[in-house]
Amino acid sequence: MAQAKKSSVLTGNMLIAQSGGPTVVINQSLVGAILEAKKQSAIRHIYGSLHGIKGILGENFIDLGRESAATLEKVARTPSSALGSVRKKPTPEDCAKMFEVMRKYEVRYFFYIGGNDSAETAHIVNEESKKTGYELACFHIPKTIDNDLRENDHTPGFGSGARFVACAFQGDNLDNRALPGVKINVIMGRHAGFLTAASALARQYPDDGPHLIYLPERPFVVEKFLADVKRVYEQYGRCIVAVSEGIADENGTAIAAKFTKETDSHGNVQLSGTGALGDLLADLVKKNTEISRVRADTFGYLQRSFAGVVSPVDAKEARQVGALAVRHAVKEPAGGGSIAIRRKPGKKYQVYFERVPLQNVARDTRHMPDEFIGPDANDVTEAFLKYARPLVGPLPEIGRFKGFPVPKK
Amino acid sequence: MAQAKKSSVLTGNMLIAQSGGPTVVINQSLVGAILEAKKQSAIRHIYGSLHGIKGILGENFIDLGRESAATLEKVARTPSSALGSVRKKPTPEDCAKMFEVMRKYEVRYFFYIGGNDSAETAHIVNEESKKTGYELACFHIPKTIDNDLRENDHTPGFGSGARFVACAFQGDNLDNRALPGVKINVIMGRHAGFLTAASALARQYPDDGPHLIYLPERPFVVEKFLADVKRVYEQYGRCIVAVSEGIADENGTAIAAKFTKETDSHGNVQLSGTGALGDLLADLVKKNTEISRVRADTFGYLQRSFAGVVSPVDAKEARQVGALAVRHAVKEPAGGGSIAIRRKPGKKYQVYFERVPLQNVARDTRHMPDEFIGPDANDVTEAFLKYARPLVGPLPEIGRFKGFPVPKK
Repeated sequence: MAQAKKSSVLTGNMLIAQSGGPTVVINQSLVGAILEAKKQSAIRHIYGSLHGIKGILGENFIDLGRESAATLEKVARTPSSALGSVRKKPTPEDCAKMFEVMRKYEVRYFFYIGGNDSAETAHIVNEESKKTGYELACFHIPKTIDNDLRENDHTPGFGSGARFVACAFQGDNLDNRALPGVKINVIMGRHAGFLTAASALARQYPDDGPHLIYLPERPFVVEKFLADVKRVYEQYGRCIVAVSEGIADENGTAIAAKFTKETDSHGNVQLSGTGALGDLLADLVKKNTEISRVRADTFGYLQRSFAGVVSPVDAKEARQVGALAVRHAVKEPAGGGSIAIRRKPGKKYQVYFERVPLQNVARDTRHMPDEFIGPDANDVTEAFLKYARPLVGPLPEIGRFKGFPVPKK
Repeated sequence: MAQAKKSSVLTGNMLIAQSGGPTVVINQSLVGAILEAKKQSAIRHIYGSLHGIKGILGENFIDLGRESAATLEKVARTPSSALGSVRKKPTPEDCAKMFEVMRKYEVRYFFYIGGNDSAETAHIVNEESKKTGYELACFHIPKTIDNDLRENDHTPGFGSGARFVACAFQGDNLDNRALPGVKINVIMGRHAGFLTAASALARQYPDDGPHLIYLPERPFVVEKFLADVKRVYEQYGRCIVAVSEGIADENGTAIAAKFTKETDSHGNVQLSGTGALGDLLADLVKKNTEISRVRADTFGYLQRSFAGVVSPVDAKEARQVGALAVRHAVKEPAGGGSIAIRRKPGKKYQVYFERVPLQNVARDTRHMPDEFIGPDANDVTEAFLKYARPLVGPLPEIGRFKGFPVPKK
């Protein structure tokens, strides 16, 4: 940072923030960006805004350049947004205020780590900066356990969230095998079923659950759900179901949304933080079948924050996208952008990264492609399993007795 | 097993079964018993009954002596009861039938792995065997995440369950710090608060949650709960609450029981497998405070079955109690018994094991001792933390920025 600067280089301070739902690797991206920024002579101070754009509006910054290497590494391995997060869509007035603040603090590099809503925020900030003629390298760094960012093969945070879901189903499948009944597990995912689909990674033996998987990409029809559960229960004497919190009826109305009216400033209905959907589905099974043992669990916030369950490849890629965003911003600040993860074709898992325009990842989400969803809309395909396996890392090995029967006397 | 036998030794086949709620280390006890039995010449065949006493009544046995060493080790590391489980209290008729079956299969060693209800079953079987004059070494092998068996310093399964709860709170505390609000987490524990109390192990920094812990050992008073939450929220701008599923009002009526009528054959009200209690408490906070962000999660079955989150000391001790039960049974079959874990006094964590009478662990449970519960009935004490820390193993390290403030301009 002490080097002489070329006049063509955009020089100034850097501001970085985190937004939206945390993940267990979002701090890897933050630390990746900080460590890269420390190497860049164009970047003077590295400011962290507390609680996203709320911290910018309130000028609540910390000096990340002064944190020790040991602290940075420890924070990188720590779940949830170390700078705090926010769910706030900036108004045009907010944007005007933010530029005022950025100008005052000589911020020329702005990085926003988050999902599609955060990309939208970065996009709005970028557009406003163009309009007002304030030179600003405005970058989005991807993050979401939902795995629903466009342009990306997968997103940082998903692999670890998927690992949590898979490990949970490994254990819960065995729990349900020990004490048979119907078990319904509700998994995060507003519009994209990737995380719910990851439950299928838990299967090892032919009778392993989840036996049924319901995704927001297909209409949830109660009669079909009940028929599916009855059929599986008759076959296996038990049934484990993975359900996305975002499942919706034929009209696109989220089943869970029928029980809540809470929305955030992006217009999203609050789906997590309640066991209502699971309990509703369990009650439906109890009332419409003869099955006595019916239970529901809602995995909730543990999926995105549980300490100690991390996919190594997810952690590594999360750090890489943070570093790359800074490198691209310094190299070519104009226009801003986001860093997308792409997968190379071929059998071996390999990725590469590309800079993509902000509007390509902002606002709209992507869904599970059709080839990942089974024809009966209640399972995933082998293509999905091939896609997801390398992202979660090796799962705990599950042992089972050969079970040599003792002849009855 | 091929050695010549002394005439004074009780010789015959062994029958082992698992009962009650599974844990992630219950198969360590099973495999510990199997491996020890293989060394004992008094024991011929090692039969495993499928689904506890249900398998005995139905003569559904597998020959565990034929399983390979590799399979046994894999199963030992696998969560949930590999033989299947059951929640069934035997009637006197069941016991008569069981002896008939045991006699037919020349069973002289019976081991039942489970909690207090399972110890009660073993006790009933033992008493009936005395009455009918059928010579049977009848042993209980302890297991319960609830940690509520009498005679024991702690029980196999608790350390790993507590580790899951602590890791969950480590992450959830940071999630709540990133997106502040009130978060209520409901934890397993019908009458004993040990597992809920383990949430306190997550604390590292002074403002870390859980900020409030409610245990079944103290009456849950709604007005006090609301006042506690408001006070913490005013202090920290957020509040994480750990609540046992078994919390009860001044009359001893479980709060959750007001919403369900389902009971098992031991007369226990079904508390898990529903998000109702968490949602009820969240609604109370929403309706009685101005706090907008209020969420609840119910950890559910993940606490006892999640694959990959295991306390190493718990796994080791679980195997030891299995092996010791077999050793004691062969050495002195008469009277039966259970293996209890005791802790040696002193700073260093060390345990020893004792054979105790079945009636001492059967039926009744133990509770959190008073010195583990804070005077305001909403927290645990340092004495509890000292007690619990060695049982869960080292937790993931949580990093935090020093947070050097940038002066406002």
